[in-house]
Amino acid sequence: MPPVWLMRQAGRYLPEYRATREKAGSFLDLCYNPALAEEVTLQPIRRYGFDAAILFSDILVVPHGLGQKVWFEEGIGPLLDPITTEAGLAQLRPGLQRKRLEPVYETVSRLSHSLPAETALIGFAGAPWTVATYMVGGRSTADQAATRAWAYRDPAGFQKLIDILVEGTIDHLLAQIEAGAEAVQIFDTWAGALPEQEFARWVIEPTRKIVAALRASFPRVPVIGFPRNAGPRYPDYVEATSVDAVGLDTSMPCGWAREALGGKVTLQGNLDPLALVAGGEALRGAASAILDTMAGVPFIFNLGHGIVPQTPPEHITELVTLVREKR
Amino acid sequence: MPPVWLMRQAGRYLPEYRATREKAGSFLDLCYNPALAEEVTLQPIRRYGFDAAILFSDILVVPHGLGQKVWFEEGIGPLLDPITTEAGLAQLRPGLQRKRLEPVYETVSRLSHSLPAETALIGFAGAPWTVATYMVGGRSTADQAATRAWAYRDPAGFQKLIDILVEGTIDHLLAQIEAGAEAVQIFDTWAGALPEQEFARWVIEPTRKIVAALRASFPRVPVIGFPRNAGPRYPDYVEATSVDAVGLDTSMPCGWAREALGGKVTLQGNLDPLALVAGGEALRGAASAILDTMAGVPFIFNLGHGIVPQTPPEHITELVTLVREKR
Repeated sequence: MPPVWLMRQAGRYLPEYRATREKAGSFLDLCYNPALAEEVTLQPIRRYGFDAAILFSDILVVPHGLGQKVWFEEGIGPLLDPITTEAGLAQLRPGLQRKRLEPVYETVSRLSHSLPAETALIGFAGAPWTVATYMVGGRSTADQAATRAWAYRDPAGFQKLIDILVEGTIDHLLAQIEAGAEAVQIFDTWAGALPEQEFARWVIEPTRKIVAALRASFPRVPVIGFPRNAGPRYPDYVEATSVDAVGLDTSMPCGWAREALGGKVTLQGNLDPLALVAGGEALRGAASAILDTMAGVPFIFNLGHGIVPQTPPEHITELVTLVREKR
Repeated sequence: MPPVWLMRQAGRYLPEYRATREKAGSFLDLCYNPALAEEVTLQPIRRYGFDAAILFSDILVVPHGLGQKVWFEEGIGPLLDPITTEAGLAQLRPGLQRKRLEPVYETVSRLSHSLPAETALIGFAGAPWTVATYMVGGRSTADQAATRAWAYRDPAGFQKLIDILVEGTIDHLLAQIEAGAEAVQIFDTWAGALPEQEFARWVIEPTRKIVAALRASFPRVPVIGFPRNAGPRYPDYVEATSVDAVGLDTSMPCGWAREALGGKVTLQGNLDPLALVAGGEALRGAASAILDTMAGVPFIFNLGHGIVPQTPPEHITELVTLVREKR
């Protein structure tokens, strides 16, 4: 009986989200407005009755809380004052300013009261590597070239940025758990591009430290890792970080993941968001294949990547019905 | 003793390439100018003495040879009149117009005479899936959303486009072999994003047909497949397509690839192009690790993706020396 929730379930594909978003001002204004962020987090729960709600926020609140300038440009996305050398780290504060992020924790606290008892509340953060690619690149980058170049050119300097992010991320996730988050997910969207040694150093090791710190304070709060496009390195990641659950991206064959990881860790994923756009037979076939393969191991039904804006909301109704009928 | 060549070894990082490129006019003009395309193919051979030359051309000459409008915009890249439905296929000719692509085959023919005897001449084509993402999206797209959406919405219609591309690609590669190519590489840059079923249908099956057709006519010409970011699906790809060699992308751990595929097929790859930008210890460490892991199995040293424009040419001299000293 897999629970079901979907990455980016609160988002532009929902008319009620677009209406709230218009009221908020900028995207960051929405993230920092507890009443409206609570509202958009609840919208998909009301509509679909998902088993989990994920806090509406953004991975870039951590660099923002560390003192970097972050803003969102309509039609472009996030922009940051890039930090590309060790000297550039001077523009950051010594640690996460929890005060700046207080509205995020207030949103979590509100949700912990307003959500139905049977709905889990998931907090989240970006993984240090992925957040670093934005801090260094100054925006979303296709190949993370500037960040990978710095990490090769000056690994000791880049390590300092990663260490700052490890500490900041621990602090940010602890604050969410203290405010009522019942589980947390660590999104490492850009983990896949790194070669083996760099994957170990910039993806696995920082995540291991974060999981260890969270577990020391909150041993029963599950941590979900999402090392997107890690491919054959998923088992290493799971073993070394000791996450409780792992998100599989769309490219991961479920049979391979089940054989390598089934029963050792809860698996989560991995429907193609484009199958959800298509609907009909494509959606039913793809969702059924995942459910059939994962039957009998601890599993959470989800997408392999976030919902895209052109998704017809009624396709999600159909998907949730299908997942629940399969139980 | 691994041979060495590098993907996109003829390109903008070389001052002599930039000089020739200026003479040619547009990028497509360069692809269709046999004297200049020959010259840029030879430039990295002169400079570095690579063991193989790869024809200077582009994967979009196939849609162009099928009658689609293709042009290159400076600073943007390739643009095409998108084909997004089965009805749109009417704008294509029934088969590849070899005549339109004659300059490409003439370049191959010239190279087969001008290259040193010890330098292998590699021809190439894009794989049908990857070429389709450009034909449908009208340009390079980050997530290939339009193409994946069509493939889900109307798999039978999309299959027709893939079938046209399979035939066109076979024809294009046969023409290159007839003109003197001694091996061919099939680039499936966007293979990674597809889920399991779609990977089997749109990546493996078309490639299998192409390899079978080439082998029927030229059983001794090796075919190198490059299903970029295929992750744990590399072994399925190799077995089902029966390619002679397979290019590993940067994300593939060499140890895993060696264990799964070493000795069954020649492995090729997979240095991070960004390590080549960095040079120094990062480059030496990464290249040595690959050479050590691949020692003793059939292996071609290469990158995991193409050379990037900001690569200092002298780093490649250093790399080639290192690979040759390791022999």
